[in-house]
Amino acid sequence: MTNEFYMNRAIELAYKGTGYVSPNPRVGAVIVKNGVIIGEGWHKKFGAPHAEIDAIDNCRGIDLSGATLYVNLEPCTHFGKTPPCTNAIIEKKFEKVVIGMTDPNPVVSGRGISMLKDAGIKVESDVLPEDCKWVNRFFIKNISTKLPYIIIKTAQSLDGNIATSSGESKWITNPESRKAVHALRTEVDAVLVGRRTVLNDNPSLTVRDIEGRNPVRIIFDSSLSLPIETGIFNDSASSVIVCCKPESSDGRKAELLKSRGINILPVWQNNQGKLDIQDAISKLSREFNIASILVEGGASVFSSFITEKIYDELHLFIAPKIIGKGINVFGEFQTRQLVEAPHFKIRAVIKRNTDIQLIAVKS
Amino acid sequence: MTNEFYMNRAIELAYKGTGYVSPNPRVGAVIVKNGVIIGEGWHKKFGAPHAEIDAIDNCRGIDLSGATLYVNLEPCTHFGKTPPCTNAIIEKKFEKVVIGMTDPNPVVSGRGISMLKDAGIKVESDVLPEDCKWVNRFFIKNISTKLPYIIIKTAQSLDGNIATSSGESKWITNPESRKAVHALRTEVDAVLVGRRTVLNDNPSLTVRDIEGRNPVRIIFDSSLSLPIETGIFNDSASSVIVCCKPESSDGRKAELLKSRGINILPVWQNNQGKLDIQDAISKLSREFNIASILVEGGASVFSSFITEKIYDELHLFIAPKIIGKGINVFGEFQTRQLVEAPHFKIRAVIKRNTDIQLIAVKS
Repeated sequence: MTNEFYMNRAIELAYKGTGYVSPNPRVGAVIVKNGVIIGEGWHKKFGAPHAEIDAIDNCRGIDLSGATLYVNLEPCTHFGKTPPCTNAIIEKKFEKVVIGMTDPNPVVSGRGISMLKDAGIKVESDVLPEDCKWVNRFFIKNISTKLPYIIIKTAQSLDGNIATSSGESKWITNPESRKAVHALRTEVDAVLVGRRTVLNDNPSLTVRDIEGRNPVRIIFDSSLSLPIETGIFNDSASSVIVCCKPESSDGRKAELLKSRGINILPVWQNNQGKLDIQDAISKLSREFNIASILVEGGASVFSSFITEKIYDELHLFIAPKIIGKGINVFGEFQTRQLVEAPHFKIRAVIKRNTDIQLIAVKS
Repeated sequence: MTNEFYMNRAIELAYKGTGYVSPNPRVGAVIVKNGVIIGEGWHKKFGAPHAEIDAIDNCRGIDLSGATLYVNLEPCTHFGKTPPCTNAIIEKKFEKVVIGMTDPNPVVSGRGISMLKDAGIKVESDVLPEDCKWVNRFFIKNISTKLPYIIIKTAQSLDGNIATSSGESKWITNPESRKAVHALRTEVDAVLVGRRTVLNDNPSLTVRDIEGRNPVRIIFDSSLSLPIETGIFNDSASSVIVCCKPESSDGRKAELLKSRGINILPVWQNNQGKLDIQDAISKLSREFNIASILVEGGASVFSSFITEKIYDELHLFIAPKIIGKGINVFGEFQTRQLVEAPHFKIRAVIKRNTDIQLIAVKS
């Protein structure tokens, strides 16, 4: 079997940590001796053993000298919540380590490889690098920018509308598309919506119809004007963070919300009087450890993220319908010239029964 | 080999007539004897022999008794430009005829099959019926409605815009998408654009970069206000038909245009003062034998076709860009309620380098 075969398996295992390891990376490991897989493991939960250790543990005492370890991310060399993986690998006398990609943190990148080589272990790197970057795109963004990875998710018609002119939006897309949105929610740390979306749709923003944990729920409500009776303020599905301007963050409404366990996050306003998204996401990262956000609308929030150039990935769920003059998905954003239009690279188009899900990344 | 195998080949051959047989159907035929294809043919040109006759001719005198004929459309029984195909099939003593679909004209549908059966020939029908309907969807629409088949073709951003707010539209899509548009032009009898598109883009609306004949060019210019210097009035690439309101159709401008070989077609106005599309396409069919039209814009023309419910198929060329508040593709159409939004069925999504081509049919 080729390096790619085992690396692919390591990536498959890495994905099993989805939703539970953030802000750690998703990592899987495969141990092969004499051409046979003798152990597999993955990082299961933030704070739990790393993939390499999990795989070693799963070999249940088999002598690992001469074995090869496949892992999608360079093994760590630091004492964090757990001791460094390189130590364990050296101790177990592995013959070879095959690595998908080096650590994206420039300060430690390559250090794991050096330590292994210094100990006489053969190392190969850059195996399926694109797939390895994809599984850890949230982590790579966090490490390099200290900001969360931003996914914009829309449910729109062929002509880019997310509602009719009267505001009707339920449902543009079909149940299969909506189920795929629930799957997306299990992957991110948080979902984010604007005040008007909460008012119009009274969404619960939880994961339904599929297995997975609920994301944190973030609401942009600059003046804390949403009524206290709003559904999302009255369930215990997962944490709620309301971003508002500083002067609204310590009034009576704020106190009332806090008394119900709602988090209030004061955020600066930009020169249009809107919440400053850059400030909001920095604070969400710093104060709440949010490493990935699914932005779910509405048009005003979508447009602000595009205007401020804060986005990494798009998931457009497109129903084969025409709405005409309605509420356009990015209608509050404006491009001066075509060359300045935000560009993306289409990564995949997935059929969702009658709809399609178009996945694109910033380019 | 199965019936489907040979029928697929007949359909392949049928497509070779694309652009040259209208308003006749596209038909291909395969003759098999003792498990071997001994002759193939297709309808090459309006007025030329039908596919069955072409295939028989290509057998160059081989005895066809006992052979099987595969053809994607029921053989004709009438004397048109050529004698009926059923006569030739019976004369040649075929053992069996396998037919893709029966004639869509209810008056003659099944007549060819009956004549063959009466002559003792075995007949099988409904082989790959969906593919057979697709290759002759223009013909089926013409026969059943006496109206041309309407394809709406757009070049748009992810958010459904065909231009920035300042009208900049060159180029939203990439060269590979534009080449695919040229291929579409070779398939239809005519392309159609509005006055503003001619003014803004000065398009030639011809087939370039690929082989194929130019379509007829139709312009909606209600008051004949386009300047006589307009490029399209001054080339000889293919016929031009200008649709205008009756009172503009016999003035000095009309005479000037006619003197240059431009066709002027008077069309009634609807109660919004726009050209009545139903009237226009009926007259284009009746007076100019136009059996299929590619509607190429702009937003006003697109919106009118959707508003009047005159469309069969969409080809949306979508570039992975966001324009925001711009000129929306169907922005002059409006849906009252979501359930009333025109619905389509997505038939295919084709990658065109960085863009996609989304093909959908009315549903």
